[in-house]
Amino acid sequence: MTSAPATPAYDTLVQLHRRLHRFEHLQSIAWWDQASNMPPKGNEARAAALGEMAALLHRMRTAPGLRDDIARAEQEPLDDLQRANLREIRREWQRANALPEALVEAKSLAASKCEHAWRVQRPTEDWPGFLENFRPVLALAREEATLLSQQSGLSRYDTLLDRFEPDMRSATVERLFADVRGWLPGLIEQVTQRQARAAVTQPSGPFPRAQQRALCHEVMQLLGFDFDAGRLDESTHPFSGGVPEDVRLTTRYREDDLLQALMGTIHETGHARYEQNLPRALLGQPVAQARSMGLHESQSLAFEMQLACGRPFAAQLAPLLVRHFGPQPAFEPDNLHRLLTRVQPGLIRVDADEVTYPAHVILRFEIERALIEGEIEAEDIPALWDEKMMTLLGVDTRGNYRDGCLQDVHWPEGMFGYFPCYTLGAMYAAQWFAAIRRATPDLDVRVASGDLAPVFDWLREQIWLQGSRWSADELAVRASGEVLNPAHFRAHLEDRYLGD
Amino acid sequence: MTSAPATPAYDTLVQLHRRLHRFEHLQSIAWWDQASNMPPKGNEARAAALGEMAALLHRMRTAPGLRDDIARAEQEPLDDLQRANLREIRREWQRANALPEALVEAKSLAASKCEHAWRVQRPTEDWPGFLENFRPVLALAREEATLLSQQSGLSRYDTLLDRFEPDMRSATVERLFADVRGWLPGLIEQVTQRQARAAVTQPSGPFPRAQQRALCHEVMQLLGFDFDAGRLDESTHPFSGGVPEDVRLTTRYREDDLLQALMGTIHETGHARYEQNLPRALLGQPVAQARSMGLHESQSLAFEMQLACGRPFAAQLAPLLVRHFGPQPAFEPDNLHRLLTRVQPGLIRVDADEVTYPAHVILRFEIERALIEGEIEAEDIPALWDEKMMTLLGVDTRGNYRDGCLQDVHWPEGMFGYFPCYTLGAMYAAQWFAAIRRATPDLDVRVASGDLAPVFDWLREQIWLQGSRWSADELAVRASGEVLNPAHFRAHLEDRYLGD
Repeated sequence: MTSAPATPAYDTLVQLHRRLHRFEHLQSIAWWDQASNMPPKGNEARAAALGEMAALLHRMRTAPGLRDDIARAEQEPLDDLQRANLREIRREWQRANALPEALVEAKSLAASKCEHAWRVQRPTEDWPGFLENFRPVLALAREEATLLSQQSGLSRYDTLLDRFEPDMRSATVERLFADVRGWLPGLIEQVTQRQARAAVTQPSGPFPRAQQRALCHEVMQLLGFDFDAGRLDESTHPFSGGVPEDVRLTTRYREDDLLQALMGTIHETGHARYEQNLPRALLGQPVAQARSMGLHESQSLAFEMQLACGRPFAAQLAPLLVRHFGPQPAFEPDNLHRLLTRVQPGLIRVDADEVTYPAHVILRFEIERALIEGEIEAEDIPALWDEKMMTLLGVDTRGNYRDGCLQDVHWPEGMFGYFPCYTLGAMYAAQWFAAIRRATPDLDVRVASGDLAPVFDWLREQIWLQGSRWSADELAVRASGEVLNPAHFRAHLEDRYLGD
Repeated sequence: MTSAPATPAYDTLVQLHRRLHRFEHLQSIAWWDQASNMPPKGNEARAAALGEMAALLHRMRTAPGLRDDIARAEQEPLDDLQRANLREIRREWQRANALPEALVEAKSLAASKCEHAWRVQRPTEDWPGFLENFRPVLALAREEATLLSQQSGLSRYDTLLDRFEPDMRSATVERLFADVRGWLPGLIEQVTQRQARAAVTQPSGPFPRAQQRALCHEVMQLLGFDFDAGRLDESTHPFSGGVPEDVRLTTRYREDDLLQALMGTIHETGHARYEQNLPRALLGQPVAQARSMGLHESQSLAFEMQLACGRPFAAQLAPLLVRHFGPQPAFEPDNLHRLLTRVQPGLIRVDADEVTYPAHVILRFEIERALIEGEIEAEDIPALWDEKMMTLLGVDTRGNYRDGCLQDVHWPEGMFGYFPCYTLGAMYAAQWFAAIRRATPDLDVRVASGDLAPVFDWLREQIWLQGSRWSADELAVRASGEVLNPAHFRAHLEDRYLGD
C-alpha cells in the first residue's frame, strides 16, 4: 500500500470548501424555510441573519491566503479528479475576488429593494416606479460585468452568463437561438392549426389539496425521489432547494387546476434527483456540484417534458389520477397526453408549453444582453418587449406591464444571464433522450409498462454522478457523442407535435 | 438636544452581540427544522453544519480582544440599561472563556454519541451499554464544572446550575426542596384518597389529527400567540424553539388522547409569549433575553397549570372542545376540570401531574448534584433512583431502566443543572398568580368570562418586557414584593386539590 502524495495546499482548499459547504447548508435551509414556513414578522430578522452569513461566506471565499494556496496547489501532484476540483475552486475564487465587498453588498441591497417593491408594482402596473429601483440594479450589474470582463477578457454579458452556464458564450447562444428563431414561428403555426381540430376533455374539479398532495408524493416515488433525503412542501413560487443530502422541493396547489401542481412537482423532482445523486464522497467540493443551470434545467425538463408529457408515460399517470380522484373521461391516457401537449401562444413564460417556451426565452436573452452591453437602456424595454412578442408569438402585449416585461423576478433581483439556461436545458434534455433511445430502442414500451430504469440509470451515470468533473461540452460529448446540438430539440418537437 | 456620550468599547460589544444573534438565528431555525422536518439521511450533514456554527460562535465569544473591550466598557458612561446589558455580556463571556475549545468539542461529541445510542438503549433496557457512553459525558461535565469552579469560586454543581438559573445556588434549592419534601408525600396521599371518591368521565375518541390541530391553533389564539411571528408544527418531543422574532412551537398528536397535544400546546404557548414579548428594541443583546430557565418554565406553567387547569378556564375550553369534536359528557366544564387535575403517582416525569411532578425533580436534583460533586458514580444511579422513587412517590421502579433512570434526555446530553428549573418554575408561577390575584381580586370571574387580559398584561409588564434587566431575585421582588417563596406553591396546591 502506497500512501497518497503530500498535497498540503490542495488539502487546505478542500478543508475550506468543506466548511463553506457546512455554512451554505444553514443558508439553504434558512432560504427554504423563508419561502415555505416563515411568518411575515420573521422577515427582518431573517434578512439580517442571511446578510450576515453572506458576508461571512464572501470573506471566506476572498481570504488573502487563497491566491497563494491555489497557485501552490496547482504545482502539487494531484490526480485527475483533484485537478478538476482545483479548476472549479479557481473558477469560484476568481469570480468572488473580482468583486469588492462594497459592490456585493450594494448589489444585494439594491436587488432586495427592487424585488420587494416589484411585488406591488407588478400587480399595480407601476412601470415608472419600477424603473426608479431597477436603474440602480442594472447599473450595479453592469459594474459587476465590467469588473469581471476586465479580469477575464470576456464580453460583459458573457461574464454574467458564465456564472450560470460556465464556458457558454453569447455567440454560441445567438447561433443556437437564431436556428430556433428560424423554424419556431412556423412550427407554432402548424401545431396550433393541427390541434384546433383535435378535441380535448378538461379534467373536472375541484381537486382537494390533500389528494393532490398524496398524488404528488406518489408520483415522486415513481420517479425515484428519496424521501429519506428530502421533502415536498408548499410555497408561493415552487422551487428546488435545500442541500444534496436533504433536498427540499416545493409546489403550490390550486383546487381548480390539477395539472399545475402535478407537473410542477415532476419538474422539481428532476432537479432533486440530480442533487440527490451528485457524487457522494466529494460532497461539498466544487467538483461535486451540479455542472450548470442549463444542465440542471435539462434534468427537470427531461422529467417533465421528455418523460412525463410523452404518450408512454400517460399509461402510468392515468391510473394514479383515477385512484386519487376517481375515473373521468379526461384521465383516459390519450386525452391526458393531449392535455399535456396542448400548445397555445400566451403572455406568461411560466405558463408556457414546451413549444412556445423558447420564444419567451429568446426575447429575454436578446433584451438582457443588450441591456448589459449598454446598447439599450431600461426605458427601452417595454417597446422591445412588445415588438418581439408580436414577431415571435403574434401576441399583443402593448400597455400590459404586469403580464409583459414586469412578469419575472429575475431582473428585479439582478439575475441577468440566467434566462438562456431554460432553453439550453430543453435542448440538452432532447439530446439526452435521443441518446437514451439509442441505448434502449424499446424505450417507449418500457416506459409505458412502468419500467423507468433505462432513463434513470442513464441520467445517473452520464450526468448526475459526473458532477462538475467535466466542462459542459466534454460532458455532452461523453454522454451523447456530441456537444449541444439543437437539432435534437427540433426533431423532438416535430416528432411529438407534427408526427402521426 | 444633547448627543449620547461616546461609548466605543460598549458599542463594539453591542455590535458583536448583534452578529451573534444573527448567526444564532440560523442555528435555531436549523435546530427546529432538524426536530420537525428533517428526513433521516439529512442528519449527518446537519450535525456537521451545526458543529461548524458552534465552533464559529465559540470563537466569536472568546475572541482575544473581548477581555479588554469589556474592561474598557465598564469605565464608560453607560446608562442603567446599558450597564445591565454589560453585566450579562460579562457573564456570557466568562462562561465561554473558562472552557478551552477542545473541551467544548469533546463535550459535544460525547453528548452526541451518548444521546444517539440512548435512543436505542432506553427501549432495550441496555443499562451497561448506556454506562459506557455516559461515563465520558459525566467526566467531561465534571471537568467543565471544575474549570468553572476555579474561575468563580462556586461549588462544581452550582457552576452548572448557574448556566440555566443565574445566581441560584444549590444551598437555596436544597432549602426550597427540603420544604417540599416535608409536605409533599402527605399531600399526595390526601389528594389521591380524596380523588378516589370522585367520578371522572374520560373523553371518548378517536380525535382526528386535523381537528386536534385546529383546536390547538384556536387555543393558541385565545392565549394571545402571534401567528404573524411564529408557527405550530409537529415533532416527536414537543419544544419551543426558533427566535423571538419567529417562535417555533411543536406538539405531537395521539388520536386516542385529546389532552396530551392540547395541554402540551398550552404549555409551549407560555414559553412562546415570553419570547415574543421580550424587549424589542434591544433584541439580540443579552439583556433582552429571557432571565432564566426557571423563569421560562414559570411562564409555561403559568399558562398550563395555573391558568388552563383552573376551574374558571374550563368554561372557555369546554365550548372549544364541543365545537371541534361534538358534545360529550367528558367536556362538561366540571368534569373537564377534574380530568385536568387528576393526581396519580407514576413512573414518568413528563406525564406527571403538577402535584407529583416536584417529586420527580427533587430525585433528579439530588442525584445529579451528587454526581457532579463526585459523591457518587454513574453506576450508583439505579439503586438511588429506586430508593428515592419509593420514598417520594411510593412507586417501585426496580429493574425498570426504561421508565426509570433512562427516561430523560438531559443526562445523556450532558445537561446537568437543568432539572431544578422545572420546580422553581412551578413555584414562581404560583407566586405570579398570587400577585395577579391581589391585583385583580375578581380574576376567576374574568377568566371564566374569557377576559384573560389581567393575566397577560401582568406577565407582559412584570416578566416578559423585563428580559434580563434584573437578577431573578430583583425581578421577583419588583413583580411580587418578595424573592421566590415556596409557600405560594404549597398554598396553590392545597387550595386547588384540598379546597372545597
